[in-house]
Amino acid sequence: DLLQDIVAAFQPKLFKGRTVLVTAGPTFEAIDPVRGLTNRSSGKMGYAVARAAREAGARVVLVSGPTALPAPHGVQRVEVSSAQEMFDAVMTQVGAAQVFIATAAVADWRPAQVHAQKQKKREGEGAPTIALQANPDILAAVAALPQPPFCVGFAAESEKLAEHAAAKRVRKNVPLLVGNLGPDTFGRDDNRLELFDAAGHHPLGSGDKLVLARKLIEEIAARLERAGL
Amino acid sequence: DLLQDIVAAFQPKLFKGRTVLVTAGPTFEAIDPVRGLTNRSSGKMGYAVARAAREAGARVVLVSGPTALPAPHGVQRVEVSSAQEMFDAVMTQVGAAQVFIATAAVADWRPAQVHAQKQKKREGEGAPTIALQANPDILAAVAALPQPPFCVGFAAESEKLAEHAAAKRVRKNVPLLVGNLGPDTFGRDDNRLELFDAAGHHPLGSGDKLVLARKLIEEIAARLERAGL
Repeated sequence: DLLQDIVAAFQPKLFKGRTVLVTAGPTFEAIDPVRGLTNRSSGKMGYAVARAAREAGARVVLVSGPTALPAPHGVQRVEVSSAQEMFDAVMTQVGAAQVFIATAAVADWRPAQVHAQKQKKREGEGAPTIALQANPDILAAVAALPQPPFCVGFAAESEKLAEHAAAKRVRKNVPLLVGNLGPDTFGRDDNRLELFDAAGHHPLGSGDKLVLARKLIEEIAARLERAGL
Repeated sequence: DLLQDIVAAFQPKLFKGRTVLVTAGPTFEAIDPVRGLTNRSSGKMGYAVARAAREAGARVVLVSGPTALPAPHGVQRVEVSSAQEMFDAVMTQVGAAQVFIATAAVADWRPAQVHAQKQKKREGEGAPTIALQANPDILAAVAALPQPPFCVGFAAESEKLAEHAAAKRVRKNVPLLVGNLGPDTFGRDDNRLELFDAAGHHPLGSGDKLVLARKLIEEIAARLERAGL
Protein backbone atom coordinates (compact mmCIF):
# COMPACT_ATOMS: atom_id res chain seq x y z
CA ASP A 1 0.00 0.00 0.00
CA LEU A 2 0.91 3.66 -0.05
CA LEU A 3 2.36 3.72 3.47
CA GLN A 4 4.62 0.75 2.68
CA ASP A 5 5.78 2.59 -0.47
CA ILE A 6 6.59 5.75 1.50
CA VAL A 7 8.47 3.85 4.22
CA ALA A 8 10.33 1.91 1.54
CA ALA A 9 11.35 5.12 -0.21
CA PHE A 10 13.39 6.13 2.85
CA GLN A 11 15.32 2.86 3.14
CA PRO A 12 18.85 2.82 1.64
CA LYS A 13 18.84 1.10 -1.77
CA LEU A 14 21.56 -1.42 -0.87
CA PHE A 15 20.12 -4.13 -3.11
CA LYS A 16 19.27 -2.15 -6.23
CA GLY A 17 19.55 -4.37 -9.32
CA ARG A 18 19.79 -7.58 -7.27
CA THR A 19 17.34 -10.47 -7.01
CA VAL A 20 16.75 -11.91 -3.54
CA LEU A 21 15.06 -15.28 -3.07
CA VAL A 22 13.43 -15.79 0.35
CA THR A 23 11.67 -18.83 1.80
CA ALA A 24 9.20 -18.38 4.66
CA GLY A 25 6.59 -20.08 6.78
CA PRO A 26 6.07 -23.70 7.78
CA THR A 27 5.67 -26.63 5.46
CA PHE A 28 2.68 -28.99 5.59
CA GLU A 29 3.53 -32.65 5.00
CA ALA A 30 0.39 -34.59 4.10
CA ILE A 31 -0.50 -37.84 5.88
CA ASP A 32 -3.81 -38.16 4.00
CA PRO A 33 -6.16 -35.64 2.29
CA VAL A 34 -7.01 -34.12 5.68
CA ARG A 35 -4.11 -34.58 8.12
CA GLY A 36 -0.47 -33.61 8.09
CA LEU A 37 2.71 -32.75 9.96
CA THR A 38 3.52 -29.08 10.40
CA ASN A 39 5.24 -26.68 12.78
CA ARG A 40 4.52 -23.46 14.64
CA SER A 41 6.21 -21.06 12.22
CA SER A 42 3.95 -18.08 11.49
CA GLY A 43 6.05 -16.89 8.54
CA LYS A 44 6.34 -13.39 10.07
CA MET A 45 10.16 -13.30 10.17
CA GLY A 46 10.48 -14.39 6.53
CA TYR A 47 7.82 -11.96 5.35
CA ALA A 48 9.65 -9.16 7.20
CA VAL A 49 12.91 -10.18 5.48
CA ALA A 50 11.19 -10.19 2.07
CA ARG A 51 9.74 -6.75 2.76
CA ALA A 52 13.09 -5.36 3.96
CA ALA A 53 14.86 -6.72 0.87
CA ARG A 54 12.22 -5.10 -1.32
CA GLU A 55 12.62 -1.78 0.54
CA ALA A 56 16.36 -2.05 -0.15
CA GLY A 57 15.61 -2.03 -3.88
CA ALA A 58 15.83 -5.74 -4.69
CA ARG A 59 13.57 -7.76 -6.91
CA VAL A 60 12.20 -10.24 -4.34
CA VAL A 61 10.77 -13.72 -4.88
CA LEU A 62 9.14 -15.15 -1.73
CA VAL A 63 8.53 -18.91 -1.71
CA SER A 64 6.04 -19.34 1.11
CA GLY A 65 4.51 -22.29 2.93
CA PRO A 66 0.92 -22.00 4.21
CA THR A 67 0.42 -18.83 6.29
CA ALA A 68 -2.39 -16.33 6.81
CA LEU A 69 -0.13 -13.38 5.89
CA PRO A 70 -0.66 -11.06 2.90
CA ALA A 71 2.23 -10.86 0.41
CA PRO A 72 4.41 -7.79 1.07
CA HIS A 73 3.88 -5.03 -1.48
CA GLY A 74 5.96 -5.45 -4.63
CA VAL A 75 7.11 -8.97 -3.73
CA GLN A 76 6.49 -11.92 -6.07
CA ARG A 77 5.05 -14.73 -3.93
CA VAL A 78 5.09 -18.41 -4.89
CA GLU A 79 2.81 -20.41 -2.59
CA VAL A 80 3.72 -24.00 -1.76
CA SER A 81 2.69 -26.56 0.85
CA SER A 82 5.25 -29.37 1.28
CA ALA A 83 9.05 -29.28 1.60
CA GLN A 84 9.34 -31.03 -1.77
CA GLU A 85 7.19 -28.32 -3.40
CA MET A 86 9.32 -25.65 -1.71
CA PHE A 87 12.49 -27.36 -2.98
CA ASP A 88 11.11 -27.46 -6.52
CA ALA A 89 10.04 -23.78 -6.44
CA VAL A 90 13.42 -22.68 -5.03
CA MET A 91 15.35 -24.63 -7.66
CA THR A 92 13.21 -23.03 -10.39
CA GLN A 93 13.85 -19.50 -9.06
CA VAL A 94 17.40 -19.67 -7.70
CA GLY A 95 19.22 -19.21 -11.02
CA ALA A 96 18.20 -15.54 -11.14
CA ALA A 97 19.08 -14.80 -7.49
CA GLN A 98 22.29 -13.28 -6.09
CA VAL A 99 21.09 -13.79 -2.50
CA PHE A 100 19.16 -16.68 -0.97
CA ILE A 101 17.67 -16.24 2.51
CA ALA A 102 16.16 -19.45 3.89
CA THR A 103 13.90 -18.48 6.79
CA ALA A 104 11.27 -21.21 6.24
CA ALA A 105 10.81 -23.82 8.94
CA VAL A 106 11.08 -26.75 6.53
CA ALA A 107 10.05 -30.14 7.90
CA ASP A 108 13.08 -32.45 8.14
CA TRP A 109 10.82 -35.44 7.54
CA ARG A 110 7.59 -36.31 5.79
CA PRO A 111 5.35 -39.36 6.13
CA ALA A 112 6.86 -42.22 4.11
CA GLN A 113 3.38 -43.10 2.85
CA VAL A 114 0.68 -40.62 1.86
CA HIS A 115 -2.81 -42.11 1.96
CA ALA A 116 -5.15 -41.15 -0.88
CA GLN A 117 -8.18 -41.32 1.42
CA LYS A 118 -8.73 -40.14 4.98
CA GLN A 119 -7.55 -42.83 7.38
CA LYS A 120 -10.37 -44.09 9.62
CA LYS A 121 -10.18 -44.97 13.29
CA ARG A 122 -11.18 -48.63 13.60
CA GLU A 123 -12.64 -50.44 16.62
CA GLY A 124 -10.27 -52.90 18.24
CA GLU A 125 -7.19 -51.79 16.32
CA GLY A 126 -4.22 -50.41 18.17
CA ALA A 127 -2.93 -46.89 17.65
CA PRO A 128 -1.00 -46.54 14.39
CA THR A 129 2.51 -45.23 13.90
CA ILE A 130 3.67 -42.81 11.22
CA ALA A 131 6.86 -43.90 9.44
CA LEU A 132 8.88 -40.93 8.20
CA GLN A 133 11.38 -40.29 5.44
CA ALA A 134 13.84 -37.44 5.01
CA ASN A 135 12.88 -34.35 3.05
CA PRO A 136 15.36 -32.68 0.67
CA ASP A 137 17.66 -30.18 2.41
CA ILE A 138 16.86 -27.00 0.48
CA LEU A 139 19.55 -24.74 1.96
CA ALA A 140 22.34 -27.32 1.60
CA ALA A 141 21.24 -28.07 -1.98
CA VAL A 142 21.36 -24.39 -2.96
CA ALA A 143 24.73 -23.90 -1.22
CA ALA A 144 26.07 -26.91 -3.16
CA LEU A 145 25.18 -25.46 -6.57
CA PRO A 146 28.18 -24.83 -8.88
CA GLN A 147 27.59 -21.05 -8.68
CA PRO A 148 25.52 -20.55 -5.55
CA PRO A 149 23.99 -17.24 -4.53
CA PHE A 150 25.12 -15.75 -1.20
CA CYS A 151 23.30 -18.11 1.18
CA VAL A 152 21.82 -17.13 4.53
CA GLY A 153 20.31 -19.81 6.75
CA PHE A 154 18.08 -19.56 9.79
CA ALA A 155 18.16 -21.85 12.81
CA ALA A 156 15.25 -22.01 15.24
CA GLU A 157 16.43 -23.84 18.32
CA SER A 158 14.77 -24.57 21.62
CA GLU A 159 18.09 -24.98 23.49
CA LYS A 160 21.88 -24.66 23.10
CA LEU A 161 21.43 -22.07 20.34
CA ALA A 162 25.10 -21.12 19.88
CA GLU A 163 26.31 -24.72 19.67
CA HIS A 164 23.58 -25.93 17.29
CA ALA A 165 23.61 -22.84 15.07
CA ALA A 166 27.40 -22.79 14.61
CA ALA A 167 27.35 -26.50 13.73
CA LYS A 168 24.45 -25.99 11.33
CA ARG A 169 26.30 -23.18 9.49
CA VAL A 170 29.29 -25.47 8.85
CA ARG A 171 27.15 -28.51 7.96
CA LYS A 172 25.08 -26.53 5.44
CA ASN A 173 28.22 -24.80 4.13
CA VAL A 174 26.76 -21.28 4.18
CA PRO A 175 28.62 -18.03 4.95
CA LEU A 176 25.94 -16.64 7.28
CA LEU A 177 23.46 -18.22 9.63
CA VAL A 178 20.88 -16.41 11.77
CA GLY A 179 19.98 -18.06 15.06
CA ASN A 180 16.76 -17.43 16.95
CA LEU A 181 15.14 -19.05 19.94
CA GLY A 182 12.12 -20.42 18.10
CA PRO A 183 9.50 -21.40 20.66
CA ASP A 184 9.80 -18.01 22.40
CA THR A 185 9.23 -16.09 19.20
CA PHE A 186 7.01 -18.15 16.86
CA GLY A 187 3.96 -16.09 15.94
CA ARG A 188 5.18 -12.99 17.75
CA ASP A 189 6.01 -9.67 16.11
CA ASP A 190 9.33 -9.30 17.90
CA ASN A 191 12.33 -11.55 17.96
CA ARG A 192 15.92 -11.91 19.18
CA LEU A 193 18.54 -12.82 16.59
CA GLU A 194 22.20 -13.83 16.67
CA LEU A 195 24.49 -13.90 13.60
CA PHE A 196 26.91 -16.79 13.02
CA ASP A 197 29.70 -16.56 10.43
CA ALA A 198 33.26 -17.79 9.91
CA ALA A 199 34.53 -15.21 12.43
CA GLY A 200 32.24 -16.33 15.25
CA HIS A 201 28.94 -14.94 16.39
CA HIS A 202 27.46 -11.68 17.59
CA PRO A 203 23.95 -10.45 18.44
CA LEU A 204 21.97 -8.67 15.72
CA GLY A 205 19.63 -7.33 18.37
CA SER A 206 16.13 -7.91 19.59
CA GLY A 207 12.84 -6.21 18.87
CA ASP A 208 10.38 -5.83 16.02
CA LYS A 209 10.88 -8.40 13.25
CA LEU A 210 10.85 -5.76 10.49
CA VAL A 211 13.51 -3.68 12.29
CA LEU A 212 15.65 -6.81 12.68
CA ALA A 213 15.04 -7.77 9.04
CA ARG A 214 16.34 -4.36 7.91
CA LYS A 215 19.47 -4.81 10.04
CA LEU A 216 19.97 -8.25 8.52
CA ILE A 217 19.68 -6.84 5.00
CA GLU A 218 22.36 -4.25 5.92
CA GLU A 219 24.63 -7.03 7.24
CA ILE A 220 24.18 -9.06 4.05
CA ALA A 221 24.81 -6.01 1.84
CA ALA A 222 28.04 -5.25 3.74
CA ARG A 223 29.21 -8.84 3.27
CA LEU A 224 28.42 -8.78 -0.46
CA GLU A 225 30.42 -5.57 -0.79
CA ARG A 226 33.39 -6.94 1.18
CA ALA A 227 33.36 -10.05 -1.02
CA GLY A 228 33.21 -7.90 -4.18
CA LEU A 229 29.91 -9.54 -5.20
CA ASP B 1 -19.32 -4.76 14.23
CA LEU B 2 -22.35 -2.66 13.38
CA LEU B 3 -23.16 -4.48 10.13
CA GLN B 4 -23.08 -7.86 11.92
CA ASP B 5 -25.44 -6.40 14.55
CA ILE B 6 -27.87 -5.14 11.89
CA VAL B 7 -27.84 -8.43 9.98
CA ALA B 8 -28.29 -10.32 13.25
CA ALA B 9 -31.28 -8.14 14.17
CA PHE B 10 -33.19 -9.51 11.16
CA GLN B 11 -32.57 -13.19 11.96
CA PRO B 12 -35.41 -15.03 13.75
CA LYS B 13 -34.65 -15.37 17.49
CA LEU B 14 -35.04 -19.16 17.56
CA PHE B 15 -32.44 -19.63 20.31
CA LYS B 16 -33.36 -16.80 22.66
CA GLY B 17 -32.46 -17.77 26.24
CA ARG B 18 -30.44 -20.82 25.18
CA THR B 19 -26.70 -21.45 25.46
CA VAL B 20 -25.01 -23.06 22.46
CA LEU B 21 -21.54 -24.58 22.77
CA VAL B 22 -19.61 -24.85 19.48
CA THR B 23 -16.19 -26.34 18.73
CA ALA B 24 -14.30 -25.22 15.63
CA GLY B 25 -10.99 -25.39 13.79
CA PRO B 26 -8.23 -27.96 13.75
CA THR B 27 -6.30 -29.23 16.72
CA PHE B 28 -2.50 -29.11 16.94
CA GLU B 29 -0.90 -32.15 18.59
CA ALA B 30 2.65 -31.34 19.66
CA ILE B 31 5.55 -33.64 18.76
CA ASP B 32 8.13 -31.28 20.32
CA PRO B 33 8.19 -27.51 21.04
CA VAL B 34 8.21 -26.78 17.30
CA ARG B 35 6.50 -29.59 15.39
CA GLY B 36 3.09 -31.17 15.49
CA LEU B 37 0.27 -33.03 13.78
CA THR B 38 -2.62 -31.01 12.46
CA ASN B 39 -5.22 -30.96 9.70
CA ARG B 40 -6.50 -28.68 6.98
CA SER B 41 -9.55 -27.33 8.82
CA SER B 42 -9.75 -23.53 8.51
CA GLY B 43 -12.44 -23.20 11.21
CA LYS B 44 -14.70 -21.24 8.83
CA MET B 45 -17.70 -23.59 9.08
CA GLY B 46 -17.60 -23.62 12.89
CA TYR B 47 -17.21 -19.87 13.12
CA ALA B 48 -20.19 -19.47 10.77
CA VAL B 49 -22.24 -21.80 13.00
CA ALA B 50 -21.25 -19.81 16.10
CA ARG B 51 -22.24 -16.57 14.37
CA ALA B 52 -25.56 -18.00 13.15
CA ALA B 53 -26.37 -19.27 16.67
CA ARG B 54 -25.58 -15.83 18.07
CA GLU B 55 -27.78 -14.18 15.42
CA ALA B 56 -30.57 -16.54 16.53
CA GLY B 57 -30.38 -15.06 20.01
CA ALA B 58 -28.29 -17.68 21.81
CA ARG B 59 -25.49 -17.13 24.27
CA VAL B 60 -22.63 -18.77 22.34
CA VAL B 61 -19.39 -20.26 23.66
CA LEU B 62 -16.92 -21.11 20.87
CA VAL B 63 -14.08 -23.47 21.80
CA SER B 64 -11.60 -22.97 18.97
CA GLY B 65 -8.40 -24.65 17.86
CA PRO B 66 -5.69 -22.52 16.22
CA THR B 67 -7.10 -20.45 13.33
CA ALA B 68 -6.44 -17.00 11.87
CA LEU B 69 -10.14 -16.02 12.20
CA PRO B 70 -11.49 -13.20 14.38
CA ALA B 71 -14.08 -14.21 16.98
CA PRO B 72 -17.63 -13.52 15.72
CA HIS B 73 -19.21 -10.49 17.38
CA GLY B 74 -20.87 -11.26 20.71
CA VAL B 75 -19.45 -14.79 20.92
CA GLN B 76 -17.36 -15.92 23.90
CA ARG B 77 -14.26 -17.64 22.48
CA VAL B 78 -12.07 -20.09 24.38
CA GLU B 79 -8.80 -20.72 22.48
CA VAL B 80 -7.16 -24.14 22.73
CA SER B 81 -4.51 -26.06 20.84
CA SER B 82 -4.66 -29.84 21.43
CA ALA B 83 -7.61 -32.24 21.47
CA GLN B 84 -7.06 -32.78 25.20
CA GLU B 85 -7.28 -29.01 25.83
CA MET B 86 -10.43 -28.86 23.69
CA PHE B 87 -11.92 -31.78 25.68
CA ASP B 88 -11.14 -30.01 28.98
CA ALA B 89 -12.63 -26.69 27.80
CA VAL B 90 -15.79 -28.39 26.48
CA MET B 91 -16.29 -30.33 29.72
CA THR B 92 -15.94 -27.07 31.70
CA GLN B 93 -18.52 -25.26 29.53
CA VAL B 94 -21.03 -27.99 28.62
CA GLY B 95 -23.04 -27.91 31.86
CA ALA B 96 -24.59 -24.57 30.87
CA ALA B 97 -25.36 -25.57 27.26
CA GLN B 98 -28.66 -26.88 25.83
CA VAL B 99 -27.06 -27.44 22.41
CA PHE B 100 -23.58 -28.75 21.53
CA ILE B 101 -22.38 -28.43 17.93
CA ALA B 102 -19.05 -30.19 17.33
CA THR B 103 -17.64 -28.83 14.07
CA ALA B 104 -13.95 -29.02 15.07
CA ALA B 105 -11.67 -31.36 13.13
CA VAL B 106 -10.28 -33.02 16.27
CA ALA B 107 -7.21 -35.20 15.76
CA ASP B 108 -8.07 -38.84 16.46
CA TRP B 109 -4.50 -39.45 17.61
CA ARG B 110 -1.65 -37.57 19.20
CA PRO B 111 2.04 -38.48 19.50
CA ALA B 112 2.46 -40.97 22.34
CA GLN B 113 5.57 -39.09 23.44
CA VAL B 114 6.01 -35.31 23.47
CA HIS B 115 9.65 -34.23 23.45
CA ALA B 116 10.56 -31.29 25.68
CA GLN B 117 13.24 -30.14 23.20
CA LYS B 118 13.27 -29.89 19.41
CA GLN B 119 14.30 -33.25 17.95
CA LYS B 120 17.47 -33.00 15.87
CA LYS B 121 18.25 -34.76 12.63
CA ARG B 122 21.38 -36.86 13.23
CA GLU B 123 23.91 -38.07 10.68
CA GLY B 124 23.77 -41.78 10.02
CA GLU B 125 20.52 -42.40 11.88
CA GLY B 126 17.54 -43.79 10.02
CA ALA B 127 14.28 -41.90 9.68
CA PRO B 128 12.26 -41.95 12.89
CA THR B 129 8.68 -43.07 13.36
CA ILE B 130 5.99 -41.32 15.38
CA ALA B 131 4.04 -43.63 17.69
CA LEU B 132 0.50 -42.41 18.27
CA GLN B 133 -2.09 -42.76 20.98
CA ALA B 134 -5.83 -42.12 20.89
CA ASN B 135 -7.24 -38.73 21.85
CA PRO B 136 -10.42 -38.45 23.91
CA ASP B 137 -13.59 -38.52 21.79
CA ILE B 138 -15.18 -35.19 22.70
CA LEU B 139 -18.52 -35.64 20.93
CA ALA B 140 -19.08 -39.18 22.25
CA ALA B 141 -18.11 -38.07 25.78
CA VAL B 142 -20.63 -35.20 25.72
CA ALA B 143 -23.35 -37.44 24.25
CA ALA B 144 -22.69 -39.97 27.05
CA LEU B 145 -23.25 -37.42 29.87
CA PRO B 146 -26.20 -38.23 32.19
CA GLN B 147 -28.11 -35.18 30.91
CA PRO B 148 -26.50 -34.34 27.57
CA PRO B 149 -27.31 -31.23 25.56
CA PHE B 150 -28.79 -31.75 22.08
CA CYS B 151 -25.68 -32.97 20.26
CA VAL B 152 -24.82 -32.23 16.64
CA GLY B 153 -21.74 -33.83 15.09
CA PHE B 154 -19.87 -33.06 11.90
CA ALA B 155 -18.19 -35.58 9.63
CA ALA B 156 -15.62 -34.52 7.06
CA GLU B 157 -15.07 -37.41 4.70
CA SER B 158 -13.00 -37.76 1.57
CA GLU B 159 -15.11 -40.66 0.21
CA LYS B 160 -18.26 -42.72 0.88
CA LEU B 161 -19.81 -39.81 2.78
CA ALA B 162 -23.28 -41.33 3.34
CA GLU B 163 -21.95 -44.64 4.62
CA HIS B 164 -19.34 -43.17 6.96
CA ALA B 165 -21.53 -40.35 8.25
CA ALA B 166 -24.52 -42.58 9.05
CA ALA B 167 -22.24 -45.00 10.89
CA LYS B 168 -20.57 -42.16 12.78
CA ARG B 169 -23.94 -40.80 13.97
CA VAL B 170 -24.88 -44.17 15.48
CA ARG B 171 -21.40 -44.78 16.94
CA LYS B 172 -21.29 -41.37 18.64
CA ASN B 173 -24.94 -41.74 19.72
CA VAL B 174 -26.02 -38.26 18.60
CA PRO B 175 -29.44 -37.29 17.15
CA LEU B 176 -28.03 -35.21 14.28
CA LEU B 177 -24.89 -35.43 12.20
CA VAL B 178 -23.82 -33.06 9.43
CA GLY B 179 -21.76 -34.56 6.63
CA ASN B 180 -19.49 -32.60 4.33
CA LEU B 181 -16.91 -33.55 1.76
CA GLY B 182 -13.89 -32.18 3.59
CA PRO B 183 -11.03 -31.91 1.11
CA ASP B 184 -13.22 -30.07 -1.40
CA THR B 185 -14.32 -27.49 1.12
CA PHE B 186 -11.56 -26.95 3.69
CA GLY B 187 -10.59 -23.29 3.73
CA ARG B 188 -13.29 -22.27 1.27
CA ASP B 189 -16.17 -19.94 2.01
CA ASP B 190 -18.78 -22.24 0.51
CA ASN B 191 -19.69 -25.78 1.36
CA ARG B 192 -22.10 -28.66 0.63
CA LEU B 193 -23.80 -30.27 3.61
CA GLU B 194 -25.97 -33.32 4.17
CA LEU B 195 -28.00 -33.99 7.34
CA PHE B 196 -28.11 -37.47 8.90
CA ASP B 197 -30.64 -38.37 11.60
CA ALA B 198 -32.66 -41.38 12.77
CA ALA B 199 -35.01 -40.97 9.79
CA GLY B 200 -32.25 -41.11 7.17
CA HIS B 201 -30.49 -38.30 5.38
CA HIS B 202 -31.30 -35.31 3.20
CA PRO B 203 -29.27 -32.44 1.73
CA LEU B 204 -29.14 -29.16 3.66
CA GLY B 205 -27.91 -27.42 0.53
CA SER B 206 -24.73 -25.96 -0.82
CA GLY B 207 -23.31 -22.46 -0.91
CA ASP B 208 -21.95 -19.88 1.49
CA LYS B 209 -21.00 -21.32 4.88
CA LEU B 210 -22.94 -18.63 6.80
CA VAL B 211 -26.11 -19.29 4.78
CA LEU B 212 -25.74 -23.02 5.46
CA ALA B 213 -25.03 -22.34 9.13
CA ARG B 214 -28.30 -20.37 9.44
CA LYS B 215 -30.20 -23.25 7.81
CA LEU B 216 -28.57 -25.67 10.25
CA ILE B 217 -29.60 -23.51 13.22
CA GLU B 218 -33.20 -23.56 11.90
CA GLU B 219 -33.06 -27.36 11.60
CA ILE B 220 -31.76 -27.71 15.15
CA ALA B 221 -34.39 -25.29 16.51
CA ALA B 222 -37.16 -27.27 14.79
CA ARG B 223 -35.85 -30.52 16.34
CA LEU B 224 -35.65 -28.96 19.81
CA GLU B 225 -39.26 -27.78 19.48
CA ARG B 226 -40.49 -31.19 18.25
CA ALA B 227 -38.73 -32.84 21.18
CA GLY B 228 -40.30 -30.34 23.61
CA LEU B 229 -36.83 -29.18 24.72
